[in-house]
Amino acid sequence: MSNIYVAIMAGGVGSRFWPASRESRPKQFLDIMGVGKSLIQLTYERFLNLCPKENIFIVTNGMYKALVKEHLPDLTDNQILCEPSRNNTAPCIAYAALKLHNLDPDANMVIAPSDHIILQEKNFIDTLNQALSFSEKNNALVTLGIRPSHPNTGYGYINFEANDQDGVHKVVRFTEKPPLEKAEAFLASGDYLWNAGIFIWKTSSILNAFQQHATGILKILNASPDCFNTPNEQAFIDENYPKTERISIDYAIMEKANNVFTIPSDFGWSDLGTWASLHNESEKNEKGNVIHCKYALTEDVTNSIIRATNGKLVIAKGLHNFMVIDEGDVLLIYPKDNEQEIKGITQNIKDKNWNQYL
Amino acid sequence: MSNIYVAIMAGGVGSRFWPASRESRPKQFLDIMGVGKSLIQLTYERFLNLCPKENIFIVTNGMYKALVKEHLPDLTDNQILCEPSRNNTAPCIAYAALKLHNLDPDANMVIAPSDHIILQEKNFIDTLNQALSFSEKNNALVTLGIRPSHPNTGYGYINFEANDQDGVHKVVRFTEKPPLEKAEAFLASGDYLWNAGIFIWKTSSILNAFQQHATGILKILNASPDCFNTPNEQAFIDENYPKTERISIDYAIMEKANNVFTIPSDFGWSDLGTWASLHNESEKNEKGNVIHCKYALTEDVTNSIIRATNGKLVIAKGLHNFMVIDEGDVLLIYPKDNEQEIKGITQNIKDKNWNQYL
Repeated sequence: MSNIYVAIMAGGVGSRFWPASRESRPKQFLDIMGVGKSLIQLTYERFLNLCPKENIFIVTNGMYKALVKEHLPDLTDNQILCEPSRNNTAPCIAYAALKLHNLDPDANMVIAPSDHIILQEKNFIDTLNQALSFSEKNNALVTLGIRPSHPNTGYGYINFEANDQDGVHKVVRFTEKPPLEKAEAFLASGDYLWNAGIFIWKTSSILNAFQQHATGILKILNASPDCFNTPNEQAFIDENYPKTERISIDYAIMEKANNVFTIPSDFGWSDLGTWASLHNESEKNEKGNVIHCKYALTEDVTNSIIRATNGKLVIAKGLHNFMVIDEGDVLLIYPKDNEQEIKGITQNIKDKNWNQYL
Repeated sequence: MSNIYVAIMAGGVGSRFWPASRESRPKQFLDIMGVGKSLIQLTYERFLNLCPKENIFIVTNGMYKALVKEHLPDLTDNQILCEPSRNNTAPCIAYAALKLHNLDPDANMVIAPSDHIILQEKNFIDTLNQALSFSEKNNALVTLGIRPSHPNTGYGYINFEANDQDGVHKVVRFTEKPPLEKAEAFLASGDYLWNAGIFIWKTSSILNAFQQHATGILKILNASPDCFNTPNEQAFIDENYPKTERISIDYAIMEKANNVFTIPSDFGWSDLGTWASLHNESEKNEKGNVIHCKYALTEDVTNSIIRATNGKLVIAKGLHNFMVIDEGDVLLIYPKDNEQEIKGITQNIKDKNWNQYL
């Protein structure tokens, strides 16, 4: 049996994809690409190229366990880690690492989001194998860095040392979402990559890093190391996980550790964070439209995205740079360039107490 | 018992209101005004101010009998006339007149569409009573004429003699939908009215007119005069009605008869023929929008109509002069000024064999 493991993080909501994504039906469970498979199914199947299915684990919120089992019926209950609360990525990753380390103290793991898209699967798997051989041999925290194609201000950036080490580079620093001018300079320098949030390390390496930089989280979650992979695990997690600090892995570990490495990569990645990014990543018709519905008739519609479920017929005319998202109980017709307002809209809906639509 | 009867014509589809109106759910059965009642219910209740419910009859297509009973549960089966085929208004009116004449040879009747709106009910009832006293005393065919408010090119016009006869005027001629220039001249002259398709006459008068001008229709439908209002009526109609000429009452009778009268009227009438006319007739918010849905958030939306059913939440931004019609299985987002293209759209859908949406 290989010592390669994968943990897929699937606990978020993907709220910028509202009204498609909901509290009760997050983005990763949607066929957001219109290909007949949910993002989590695509992610799972992608990792089957890396390790056997027995070695793939899902970390999710307890309320999505049934959804995970529905989308990935091959998984056993022990492969689905259920968080009782949303405490950001650091506790999530510590939990996954502890559980895998208990299974296999020699585990060499990948941890990755469930809701990104990767268009060049072979490049991706090749890059992961390169990272896994490096992490196997070194006490290293490896993060995949995407070669930037444009000065995106919505991503975090990784500044890396240009001197080569078999394609694996030491990370100098992480930079949060930069202003446009800075993003342009990053792009021009050639020393910056997008932070994709895909990590590779031995469980011993990451647990060592938690011991150094985020002792509190480790102390809480490792209070009963024998419970992992036993019937007592869930009760222990339900009681203790909520007590951990709510902090991202970037803040808790990556920005502090000095054994962080990156591999400059290029495998058609997008975090698919918003409707506009879906439009960017999807195949468009001759008018620049992405049409995800069974039946549509459009005239004088350009650079727009139209999504409707359940075989709905959509007739549209005179829409330019729009998104039309029909989700049964909610219809959103909105200029694509204003999609950042979705957060305000959902807040407005919350304020009005129309919670059935969230 | 009064000799006043009402026959409400409810056999059409109102196809210009697609996708709200369908073959299986015509316009008159829709709450198109967003008031909680269908147009046929509003029409029926309006006529309750004129005569007892026992004297109100519905002429509809056989396939809508169940819908009529659902919307108007007070009616008996004998009050619902079921046409086996769509043969336009002349056979429909002949059938209604023969049946009412059989019930009451002295019947003085109103025949009117089920899918118009009338905002000033008292004026309407007063005008009908005026027309009914005239038709009671004269062998006259009375049609209500609406004083035109603008040079509408979608209506037929009635040219009337200005000399008064207790407010009832002789009709000189009918004119089909005129070009704009002509409609403007009609409006300026003061001698033209809109033809509302609401007729008042004694059954003896209209049957007399059929005898003179449309003998063929009368001959077919009056072949078995004793069958009306008996268990044999439906079988007779099912066999013979389809054989009648498909022709409107205007062409068959009104344009030929010389005993046609009109009463210039003003009771907030609209034939509510299209989505734009619904927009015109409805209460608008401060941005000129007509919003018929339970929950909506709009920003930078003006002069538009938004309709959604089943408690759907609609979020829209950046739409001007649009209609957004969500009907569960069909979503139409279309410039209001292009609504005449709906006919082409439904033809296109038919051509594509997407008949489930018609």
